[in-house]
Amino acid sequence: MLVVKKFGGTSVANKERIYNVANRCLEDYRAGNQVVVVLSAMGKQTDVLIDMAKDINDKPPKRELDMLLTTGEQISVALMGMAFDALNVPAVSLNAFQVAMHTTSVYGNARLKRIDTERIRHELDNKKIVVVTGFQGINKYDDFTTLGRGGSDTTAVALAAALHADKCEIYTDVDGVYTADPRIVPNARKMKEITYDEMLDLATLGAGVLHNRSVELAKKYNVPLVVRSSLNTSEGTTIKEVVKVEGMLISGVAAEKNATRISVIGLEDRPGVAFRLFNLIAKANINVDMILQSIGRDGTKDISFTVPEDMSDDAVKIIEDNMDMLRAHQVDVNKDVAKVSVVGAGMMSNPGVAAKMFEALFGADININMISTSEIRVTVLISEKDTERAMRAVHDAFGLED
Amino acid sequence: MLVVKKFGGTSVANKERIYNVANRCLEDYRAGNQVVVVLSAMGKQTDVLIDMAKDINDKPPKRELDMLLTTGEQISVALMGMAFDALNVPAVSLNAFQVAMHTTSVYGNARLKRIDTERIRHELDNKKIVVVTGFQGINKYDDFTTLGRGGSDTTAVALAAALHADKCEIYTDVDGVYTADPRIVPNARKMKEITYDEMLDLATLGAGVLHNRSVELAKKYNVPLVVRSSLNTSEGTTIKEVVKVEGMLISGVAAEKNATRISVIGLEDRPGVAFRLFNLIAKANINVDMILQSIGRDGTKDISFTVPEDMSDDAVKIIEDNMDMLRAHQVDVNKDVAKVSVVGAGMMSNPGVAAKMFEALFGADININMISTSEIRVTVLISEKDTERAMRAVHDAFGLED
Repeated sequence: MLVVKKFGGTSVANKERIYNVANRCLEDYRAGNQVVVVLSAMGKQTDVLIDMAKDINDKPPKRELDMLLTTGEQISVALMGMAFDALNVPAVSLNAFQVAMHTTSVYGNARLKRIDTERIRHELDNKKIVVVTGFQGINKYDDFTTLGRGGSDTTAVALAAALHADKCEIYTDVDGVYTADPRIVPNARKMKEITYDEMLDLATLGAGVLHNRSVELAKKYNVPLVVRSSLNTSEGTTIKEVVKVEGMLISGVAAEKNATRISVIGLEDRPGVAFRLFNLIAKANINVDMILQSIGRDGTKDISFTVPEDMSDDAVKIIEDNMDMLRAHQVDVNKDVAKVSVVGAGMMSNPGVAAKMFEALFGADININMISTSEIRVTVLISEKDTERAMRAVHDAFGLED
Repeated sequence: MLVVKKFGGTSVANKERIYNVANRCLEDYRAGNQVVVVLSAMGKQTDVLIDMAKDINDKPPKRELDMLLTTGEQISVALMGMAFDALNVPAVSLNAFQVAMHTTSVYGNARLKRIDTERIRHELDNKKIVVVTGFQGINKYDDFTTLGRGGSDTTAVALAAALHADKCEIYTDVDGVYTADPRIVPNARKMKEITYDEMLDLATLGAGVLHNRSVELAKKYNVPLVVRSSLNTSEGTTIKEVVKVEGMLISGVAAEKNATRISVIGLEDRPGVAFRLFNLIAKANINVDMILQSIGRDGTKDISFTVPEDMSDDAVKIIEDNMDMLRAHQVDVNKDVAKVSVVGAGMMSNPGVAAKMFEALFGADININMISTSEIRVTVLISEKDTERAMRAVHDAFGLED
């Protein structure tokens, strides 16, 4: 069996944890499996590097920033290689050049295009554990790129797909996927299985366990994904195409505080306005989430949407620089917002889900700012301060506790 | 004009120094020159990484150690790239993969074989300053290697040779090559020019300014080398094939404390003994320096030689493991030794140099342990504690002061 195992930065933050990871990989290796380990940079190393960069240049060029940040994972994999050596296990560390991991050209937010498997296969055939840098790639100019948030998860899933691995295990500091964040909703329940689509919505909506890009990729290549804890041997949650029906309408509640609502007010009410606006934003590589367009009145309309908080300044600047072209009157920004969502494949055939959620929020006296729905989720934008209360109210309303 | 400029770790140890280096490079760039900058890892970063490695594995595998250490220079060049950006100068940082710098396969002590110049040329043609990682390369397995001591100097000279640069400037914390270390011999004189051969002997014998591998390479490809200070604009010392005769017999006095004398005693006095001994040592990549063989007596002979201190344990172990094959009786080790040398092209035609040196040492009551001479130098091995006194005595005897 070929297993890809991914460990995040906290799992390799010091000597003890590095050996903990090495020993967990050894269990698989000694059982006769081929093991590929994907690592992030140690602990807060990426933040340390970003601080170094900003000390030199408060707007560091993204190409050079990626050149800097990719050293973080290279340090992790080299040290892990040394740990395996100390345990008398043959291992080899590889960075994005050595694999090679080909990505698009966008520095800071590249996407994996193709992974060469020849070198990894060769090392696995030589009975080595292969330790690969997560989060990084190389582009067509032969420059380092990074994959943006959740990058190491994406690396692990993409490697599992390219190698036709039997399993991709994502080790985190939680022991699986819960119906809601247990720190906020104490009676949340751990799920044994969940579908890609449900996980995708939970991830997108802030469940925080997995990044949606990695889940998308797992779904696309049908990679069996397991989320489990690096601290205990609990079984975790398996994410796959079809799960056995548990009679559960809703699989979970998620919240995302890293959101900013931007409203562009007084746009001319004619075709092409939305296209021009979101084309500008897309060109700047800014991810837009909930979009709401008001009904036109007096020849103008308003468009509101949410973006990740760290991209909101860029988004606002782009719009302000193009007010004339967009023929907009005003831009309004609100950073004190959060998205709360309920997710579940079962809700497709049940029109009462949204109503039940709104009722729960009304009961908790929480105002709803925006609403967005898909076939398997309902998301509301609310004040950030109400997030925890909203999660508990919704979790209770749907009876998701154990 | 194309200039290669190399700065060591202390020159890029913090923000202020990084900008100091950037500004020095800018002077050349603004004067219309093409500039390639070679950097070492920041300050004590390499030592920090080595400590991290030893914390994980007290004998870290060399392949993984190189994987770890090469992150040091990558951090330096990325930050330098950001500094140039802040100064509004187009620049690009490149590591060993990106250049590419091809080396032999020996981890920890590789030698440069070939440097691809296409990428660097392309970036220079685009009016960019090119910032290259020193000290590192890649081998035929596509693994990182490091070049060992003086590696960044070697990178700079090799790049200058490959690019047919007009000049290779090595920036250090001293402002040139002196007739002796000014910290030990206060009246030492800075030389304006020196030949490759003289510099080679001074470097080999511990002058400490340049590593002999870089000087060898400069001589081989006739790269005009300048040693100068990163702290002031003093002209430094130019190293080239022929220098104008200054009427000086001796160009300098150098000392090297990083030496260990190993004596193999009671070797059978027959052909092939020296070959077998040094073949063993060479296979372990240990550099042997002074070699002295006693005259055979009673059918046996002794061979003494010096090695760098950090390689002496390895050398002794190899010999001890092969005592039977070598048919040796005993190995004797002395780490408390130092080499003191006088160097100068002028001494070839003057048989009195060695005698004058020995006289000076005798006058200072310093015992000579071994003697070795070449056409342009005389080296003696003495007790380490006598080093400074010996240097001053010899410097005075040859009248090298200002």
